[in-house]
This record gives sequence, structure tokens and C-alpha cells, in this order.
Amino acid sequence: MRTRAAVAVEAGKPLEIMDVNLDGPRAGEVLVEIKATGICHTDEFTLSGADPEGLFPAILGHEGAGVVVEVGEGVTSLKPGDHVIPLYTPECRECDYCLHPRTNLCQAIRETQGKGVMPDGTSRFSTLDGDPILHYMGCSTFSNHTVLPEIALAKVRPDAPFDKICYIGCGVTTGIGAVINTAKVEIGSRAIVFGLGGIGLNVIQGLRLAGADQIVGVDLNPDKKEMAERFGMTDFVNPSEVEGDLVPYLVNLTKGGADYTFDATGNVQVMRAALESAHKGWGESIIIGVAPAGAEISTRPFQLVTGRVWRGTAFGGARGRTDVPRIVDWYMDGKIEIDPMITHTLKLDDINKGFDLMHAGESIRSVVVY
Amino acid sequence: MRTRAAVAVEAGKPLEIMDVNLDGPRAGEVLVEIKATGICHTDEFTLSGADPEGLFPAILGHEGAGVVVEVGEGVTSLKPGDHVIPLYTPECRECDYCLHPRTNLCQAIRETQGKGVMPDGTSRFSTLDGDPILHYMGCSTFSNHTVLPEIALAKVRPDAPFDKICYIGCGVTTGIGAVINTAKVEIGSRAIVFGLGGIGLNVIQGLRLAGADQIVGVDLNPDKKEMAERFGMTDFVNPSEVEGDLVPYLVNLTKGGADYTFDATGNVQVMRAALESAHKGWGESIIIGVAPAGAEISTRPFQLVTGRVWRGTAFGGARGRTDVPRIVDWYMDGKIEIDPMITHTLKLDDINKGFDLMHAGESIRSVVVY
Ligand SMILES: [Zn+2]
Ligand SMILES: [Zn+2]
Ligand SMILES: [Zn+2]
Ligand SMILES: [Zn+2]
Repeated sequence: MRTRAAVAVEAGKPLEIMDVNLDGPRAGEVLVEIKATGICHTDEFTLSGADPEGLFPAILGHEGAGVVVEVGEGVTSLKPGDHVIPLYTPECRECDYCLHPRTNLCQAIRETQGKGVMPDGTSRFSTLDGDPILHYMGCSTFSNHTVLPEIALAKVRPDAPFDKICYIGCGVTTGIGAVINTAKVEIGSRAIVFGLGGIGLNVIQGLRLAGADQIVGVDLNPDKKEMAERFGMTDFVNPSEVEGDLVPYLVNLTKGGADYTFDATGNVQVMRAALESAHKGWGESIIIGVAPAGAEISTRPFQLVTGRVWRGTAFGGARGRTDVPRIVDWYMDGKIEIDPMITHTLKLDDINKGFDLMHAGESIRSVVVY
Repeated sequence: MRTRAAVAVEAGKPLEIMDVNLDGPRAGEVLVEIKATGICHTDEFTLSGADPEGLFPAILGHEGAGVVVEVGEGVTSLKPGDHVIPLYTPECRECDYCLHPRTNLCQAIRETQGKGVMPDGTSRFSTLDGDPILHYMGCSTFSNHTVLPEIALAKVRPDAPFDKICYIGCGVTTGIGAVINTAKVEIGSRAIVFGLGGIGLNVIQGLRLAGADQIVGVDLNPDKKEMAERFGMTDFVNPSEVEGDLVPYLVNLTKGGADYTFDATGNVQVMRAALESAHKGWGESIIIGVAPAGAEISTRPFQLVTGRVWRGTAFGGARGRTDVPRIVDWYMDGKIEIDPMITHTLKLDDINKGFDLMHAGESIRSVVVY
């Protein structure tokens, strides 16, 4: 079939909106009509050329929602008409990782996904001239139609609005999941969130959902304060306004250090501050942000020997097919909010404007509606 | 009273064996006759002058066993004749740390302990001329008699031999506890232990006790192999005999990385290797060794984002009054071994020989018997 997509032709260039060919689903695959997709920093990271594993030409986008159009041979868990959210971290429920109680990093299709192809080693996308175009993160939601493995689709309730729940495909789940699945924050905890962008806001609402008593937000931009408070932040700290070192200030503010700290900046210096502002004896620090290639974290081992724990999280530790439908329910039940974070809605033809808004720091999340 | 002690008069000098004055126990304190004491690397670290917090003159030693001679006012849990092991990490059962489920770092007497005095701010030790001598780690087991707070004494069964169970006061509990309390190793786990000295051997027997399937020991000294095998090591790796990088070799040997890795070297480069040879998705690495002042650990945050966890442990995460008596029972029941690790037994007058043996790498543990 023919569909309309925004193609990343090469690194550092704007996306090109064009018609492309899309082959139908093969065995174990599903054809999905994407109804809406968010534009995430990871798309920007790859498009910019900073991602050492970025491949071109490719159809980016990994934060979508849509409807099943057709299923390939052997697909049993989905049928045409089902509403779905694509999963860049799949859940096969059979690999060593899916069967291990402490990870969500399903490895079933990792290699081919990293190469921009389906599990059989080929791409479903091509130009109208027949030249192949690669998939991206196994999703390629910047295309009105796309093909995914069955294990990379979460089936969600049909009454949830696509233009909001698409955000659950990455940012919402990453932030809330870091709190619930990775940190396993208990009621009454004190927490610090570094970086109040989209991920940080979702960490904050995850902390509110988990019943944290104190939720400190740290950001250099004072304009972030109002929105963060709306999502549950109790204390705002602007490091540029702190006299002396930030870590002792935060330790004092949290009565000895936070039970849980979260880095949502990707800055390795901030990651260190996050670890060191965790409470002696039991504080845990969770790295969410993606650091520049080659950057390293460091600290004195004394920080760990005296009881702090350093962790990281990917896709919020969520097992997508199991957890994403629950998060959609939480949204529909009003337990979490998404609408205020979708600051801009665009048509596919204007998708590059979404990247411009991101660069200018004007959006929390831009969503493309097909 | 007057007692005999080995006094650390100043940094870098041998201990001086002499008679000292010891005041009786004040409220909440206990006078103990030390029957045996191990000589630990931490004593050496302080005596050498490398410990930036070392104070002199002091009576070192923190790995002892003995008998209660007299109790001060208000002491209810101990009486004369009780057999006890001194605890450099006390357990008050009342502070915020003791009441938190995830730490053993009781803070009840931390400040005064760090200053070499009892909780009331004074020392019980003095020279025969009346000049004060400081306590060390709240224990000072290099004295035939010493005074400790009640909360810093574990009451143990009377039939256990002092010259063996003294080692439970530090090395045994640190190694076994790192496995059981900090890592919480599950039956069937794969593990790697870096450094096969006394702590490493105790980590190994902790792993055997916990039912680990694979216990890899890593050490540059091939002479360590035989003893480590006796304690349960299944695979020995000498990094100097590995072609190429150590980490991928260990990851391959453990079928994808170890579930748990332990650093018992204190070398920050080894700590990094330990983290990076933990399994993607769920591997946890535990720092036990004490690094040189100012040394820092580092890694790429990707290691944590892909699921590895970095922890540390102090006194094996053990709550001394609760856990130490159980470990003594395990020794008496034959669940763990200590005897082969006590390679040398000395009289107090020869205590400096114990330090010489340590420097020469000839001892696993030297014990002074009074
Ligand atoms: Zn994303
Ligand atoms: Zn899987
Ligand atoms: Zn010790
Ligand atoms: Zn306590």
C-alpha cells in the first residue's frame, strides 16, 4: 500500500513529508494506522546526528497510538479494529529477560530493531522508486501507517483519545514507571526530581500517585515552576539561586537527603548531584536521562558504601503489553493527567515545526495528529 | 583499673605494648575482658596514617570477642559473665536508621565514636601518667579490657571459641552479610568475587551458603585459588592470564554477566569492572572494599540505564546485636567455616608481627589471644 510519512533522509536535515510504499504484515506482524504521534527528544537526538547508532533514511517516531488494520499469519492477540500503542521496548513474554522478575528489557527482537528492520531482517517501507527506508525503534510512528511485530503492540481501551494516549508510548510511561516500577517509591517518601521537562513532570505526577510526602523539583528555568506544581511538586529549587553547594542544600531541604532522586536531564554532573543528595543509608537515585555519547558518571565509592543505591531505568521499567494498558486506564480514570503537557498539536505536514518548538523550549510535548 | 594494651602512639609507628589505666563503665556502658582479637586491614589503614580521620594516641582493634566483667547503670541486656562480640556498627534499635528497613548504619553514637570517645564525650583510657588515650571505632580490642556502650555489644553463645568468633566482629560478617543482607542473593545465582583475601573468602562462603550455582573468584595471585575453592569458588580467573579485556571474558564465563558481583579489593578500576560484568537488565554490583581517600568510581550511565545496579555495603549490612549471634550459631553448626582463615595466632606482645604478616601477604587473618 501507499501511505504518507515524514522521512528522515539524512542526519541534520529537516524531515521530508512524502508518500511511501508500505508492504503488508508478514507472519507475526501487524499493520497499524497511526492516529497520533508525539515528537520525543530521542527522535531529535537521532535526527540531529548525535546518536552514534542512527541510521538513514528512516521513518522516525516511537510515541504513537492507532488502530489495527490487518494482522499477519499467526497473530492471535490482536485483530483489526483494536486500538494499540506501539512499544519500542517489546514484551515477548518468552525470553530470559521477560521471564526475569527484575527487568523489562525484552531482547526478543533487539538486534533487528537496532538495524532498522523487522525481525525477518527486511524493511516494510520503501520509496515510490523502490529504495528501502528503515524502521526506527521498531515503531516508525511518523508514518500514517506502519508495520510492527505483534509483541511490540499494547492493546488499549477503545474510548481513550489517540492524541493524548500516544504520549503514554514513551514520556508518560518513562516518567511514571521510573517511580513505580524502578524505584518502587513508598507512600510518605521524600523525592527530588532534577529537570522539569516532559519526563520530569511525569516523574512528579508518578510521585504524587505513589503518595510521596515531599516532591522537590530542580530546574534552572523558573518558568517550569508553575506547571510542575500543577503536577504535584511541593518545593522548587533553582540551583542558580542557591548560595553554596546544591547537594547540602537539598540534603537539608529533605531532612537528611531524599529517599529517592531522579535525573531527568541527561547531564552527568546532575546525575552525580542526584546520587549524592539521596539519603545516607537507604536513598536510591535513578538515572532516566540519556547522556551524550562517551560521557561518564562518577562519585566516591563512600557514597555507595554508606548505603546509597545507583540505578537506571529504560521505558520506566514497564513491560509494555502489561503495563501500558493500565496507564491508559489511569489516564481515563483521572489518576494521572496528560492534557496540560500536550502543548501543541500539529498536522504531519508541519512536523518540522514540532522540532523547532522543542529546540526553542516552547513545547512540553508536540503531537502530530493524522 | 589497670590493663594491658597495644597503643598506637602515632601514625606510621609500631604499636607500643604497655599498661594503661581504664576507668569503669558509666551509665549505659559495659566493661569487657577481651579474650581474642583479629588484626584487620582497617586497623592497618589507620595505623599507617592513610586514614584521614585517624586520631592518636589510640587503642586500635575492632574485631574482638570477650566476656562482660561489669555493667554500668541502666544496662539491662547484659550481665557479668555474658560472652560478647564488640560492634563498631552499633544497633540502638531506636534511631531513624535502626527503624528503617533498609539500613544497618545506626547513628546513635556516630559522632562521639568518630572522635574516639564514649557517648558522654570522654575516654575511659589513659596512660599511667594520666594522659588520655582515645578509643577506636568504639571498640579498642587491642586492649585486654575495654569499655563499650551496651548498644555496641552482641551477646553470643558461651560455648563458641573466642579465638575464632572474634573474626565475626568484622571480616566474616562483612563478607557473608554483603551476600545475604545487601545483595540478598537467591538460590541458583551466578556471582563474581573480585579479590580473594579474607573478605573475598567470606563473600565466597556466603555465596555457597546462599546456594549460588556459579561462584567466580578473580585475583592476580594464583596462590589464592586453593583456599578459595575450599570455601566454594567454582571458577578461578587470573586477569593476567586473560587475553583481551577482562569484562567480556567474565560476561561470557557467566553466560551474559553475573547476577551479583562483589568488589573486595578497594581498587576503583576493579569496582568498575565488577559493575560492568554484572548482567544486563538485573545484575547488581556491591562495593565492599574501602578505596583510597579521594579515589572515584566511574562508568557510562548506559550501564545503569540498561539495568545494572550499583550498591555498597558496610559491616555486611548486618544489624550487629541481631545478626552477629546468628552468624556465631552458623559457625558452631558448621554452616560456615572460620578456622582455616585464622592462619596465625599471636600473643599481644607480638601484635606488630601480625601487621608484618599482613604486609607480606602471608596471613589471611592473624588473631591475638590474650
Ligand atoms: Zn521517547
Ligand atoms: Zn522478551
Ligand atoms: Zn575490620
Ligand atoms: Zn540506631
